[in-house]
Amino acid sequence: MKAHIITIGDEILIGQTLNTNAAYIGERLSNINIDVRTSSVVGDDEGDILKEFDRCWKKNDLLVVTGGLGPTHDDITRKCIIKFFKTELIQNNDVLEDIKFLFEKRKREVTKVNVDQALVPKIAKVIRNSRGTAPGAWIEKDNKIFIVMPGVPSEMEKMMTSYVIPNLKEKLGVPEFTILRKTIYTTGIPESTLFEKLGDIEELLNGAGLAFLPSIFGVKLRITVKEKDEETAKNKLSEVEQKIISKAGRYIYSRDEEALEAVIGKLLKDRNLKLAVAESCTGGYVSNVLTNISGSSEYFERGIISYSNASKVEILRVNEDTLAEYGAVSIEVARQMADGVKSIAGADIGLAITGIMGPGGATAGKPVGLVYISVCDDKVCTAKEFRFGEDRLLNKQRTSQAALEMLRRHILGITQDE
Amino acid sequence: MKAHIITIGDEILIGQTLNTNAAYIGERLSNINIDVRTSSVVGDDEGDILKEFDRCWKKNDLLVVTGGLGPTHDDITRKCIIKFFKTELIQNNDVLEDIKFLFEKRKREVTKVNVDQALVPKIAKVIRNSRGTAPGAWIEKDNKIFIVMPGVPSEMEKMMTSYVIPNLKEKLGVPEFTILRKTIYTTGIPESTLFEKLGDIEELLNGAGLAFLPSIFGVKLRITVKEKDEETAKNKLSEVEQKIISKAGRYIYSRDEEALEAVIGKLLKDRNLKLAVAESCTGGYVSNVLTNISGSSEYFERGIISYSNASKVEILRVNEDTLAEYGAVSIEVARQMADGVKSIAGADIGLAITGIMGPGGATAGKPVGLVYISVCDDKVCTAKEFRFGEDRLLNKQRTSQAALEMLRRHILGITQDE
Repeated sequence: MKAHIITIGDEILIGQTLNTNAAYIGERLSNINIDVRTSSVVGDDEGDILKEFDRCWKKNDLLVVTGGLGPTHDDITRKCIIKFFKTELIQNNDVLEDIKFLFEKRKREVTKVNVDQALVPKIAKVIRNSRGTAPGAWIEKDNKIFIVMPGVPSEMEKMMTSYVIPNLKEKLGVPEFTILRKTIYTTGIPESTLFEKLGDIEELLNGAGLAFLPSIFGVKLRITVKEKDEETAKNKLSEVEQKIISKAGRYIYSRDEEALEAVIGKLLKDRNLKLAVAESCTGGYVSNVLTNISGSSEYFERGIISYSNASKVEILRVNEDTLAEYGAVSIEVARQMADGVKSIAGADIGLAITGIMGPGGATAGKPVGLVYISVCDDKVCTAKEFRFGEDRLLNKQRTSQAALEMLRRHILGITQDE
Repeated sequence: MKAHIITIGDEILIGQTLNTNAAYIGERLSNINIDVRTSSVVGDDEGDILKEFDRCWKKNDLLVVTGGLGPTHDDITRKCIIKFFKTELIQNNDVLEDIKFLFEKRKREVTKVNVDQALVPKIAKVIRNSRGTAPGAWIEKDNKIFIVMPGVPSEMEKMMTSYVIPNLKEKLGVPEFTILRKTIYTTGIPESTLFEKLGDIEELLNGAGLAFLPSIFGVKLRITVKEKDEETAKNKLSEVEQKIISKAGRYIYSRDEEALEAVIGKLLKDRNLKLAVAESCTGGYVSNVLTNISGSSEYFERGIISYSNASKVEILRVNEDTLAEYGAVSIEVARQMADGVKSIAGADIGLAITGIMGPGGATAGKPVGLVYISVCDDKVCTAKEFRFGEDRLLNKQRTSQAALEMLRRHILGITQDE
């Protein structure tokens, strides 16, 4: 089944809103082996939308459309669907009930524009919306499927998991090929170095596919195999995976598509260790990432964002003389912060970060991007210097990933890189 | 000038990577009044890429392509350009020097695959890359422009600001129309309620355009006017803006496309106020957002992530009896946290958040999504209850935005909503 995703909205084209919907839909469709070959974005213009419907409907078996179903005047997707399929609008009472129920729950009056949202294309099966007012629609014609959903991510996501994916699976039946994918997450090694470490790529892959996906968090390696039967596919995948591990194992932190913070969470939980974090320059970024993991309260004891020097001294017990002699951005202060936060929290491990994220704050000998990270337990205290770039937000992300990787290695007893 | 953006990469299609590049490019092109009408994503497949080049080149004056220029075997964009424009590769010595310089700086060996990146399409002007190894290219043919850049965001962004935008501006010359846009940021009011508050939309707009952009952070209103001369455009824009302010001013926190944390930063700085933050459930999210603003160390004194009850008592001086009687997720504890963090930091304002982000952690009478937020200064201490949804990460974001909006209103003396 060849699929295309259309996202509707000027706000996507002019970059005011990130197209997270296309990513979400692409991932879910790929997971059930639907071949998402292309996707596109079109503005809130009737002519452009109709042209795009026409072009993509001809070339694909499945068209998934999001956006432009809201209650305001600039939402024109429904009108376009009526024209494209030469159908009409009829009121759907289930949808009307849903809308009334939602407004009752939120203790708000149902407005005229919301009632109008219960009008749906006559030829469509309705996809009900449990999180908002705009219903989705599923249209089948000429042996093809056209799906439209609202652009609000949480509403679309709920429709995908509870209706679209189950119904598509049923349509697909037993697949002709088995396509398996596996993504290996690495960090701390540049793309080209990793590529060379893997040696002769044709030999390593033996017909499988391998994509390099670099980002500031590291390089992901995505292996893809396509075989007639599942057994062969699984063996092939495992073979390539093992070869990659043997060549670059040291840089791999996940083979289960887990973020570094999830990997660390499991390591801490398994070992029954408590973590405390002291952040200066990252301002809460690292703690936030760690606590994005559900259940993190089991191992994340507390975090101190010691932005001011006073807070470093008062809470973390950093020595005032050390601060005066070496400055807040120094390997000495990083060590004392890590040791201090561990002690006051009664935790097993302390992680600390101090640095200059920019654009301001540089001093003689201490440029923007200079960062010190330290990890301490009761026996070992490691600290490292890093030199990142000039962008404040990128620096926060890079620093966080480096700190988490130091933490992972510390827990596993892997030596830190030079 | 009609433009189309093509992003190349399977990782975008299957949702492993968010298409931030298309958003960035779309925004920058729109800012100089280039009409980005459509954009598309195509996978790492030569046939698909060449078809997409052909289709989009015919229909547009400007084509901007990113992705697939890296050093590994799955990067095939350069090969496709050579075929599409029927040209050849030649070595560019400036690029070779750039690559050598970059590797020297990073203290790494130049590898063969990197040297090959100095090969560029003969008919192209090279766009040099100061942040990575893959050069970009600018090709002019048949009175149209084709631009290709690497997919690594920081490299592409640097090329856009230092080369692509200045050169496009020069090409464009004096514009025929003046298109002006203004986006007004609101929060704390649903889209449909806001729509109804604005009344007769045709009358309000009088020919201007207005888009409603809802997200979990609030609803943005984007006004667009297109006029022959700049003076008329400016007046029209200002007229619509004033009408919107008169009808929904209370919910507007920015008319300069500033995030709420940037608005708050200015308010604190102007009034010379120091802020301290105590977070439980948000785990550092709010402090991180506040410290994303450059110069925030002037007003952000410290943050305490009091995840454990022990940390609430030891650092924030929350009363143990209050904790036992009302529980950590209570309006009483929120107030004590806000007051406590303000006192220990010697700050003017304390902001505190406690709640249940889910999916675990719910207890009898305290469901997932329950949040208490408090803002205190030396005279006034406000606290409010919120009930958000079930998704952990969305809850963190919603809670943060609600906390910042309470803080904004507190500073400005605007009464909090019921």
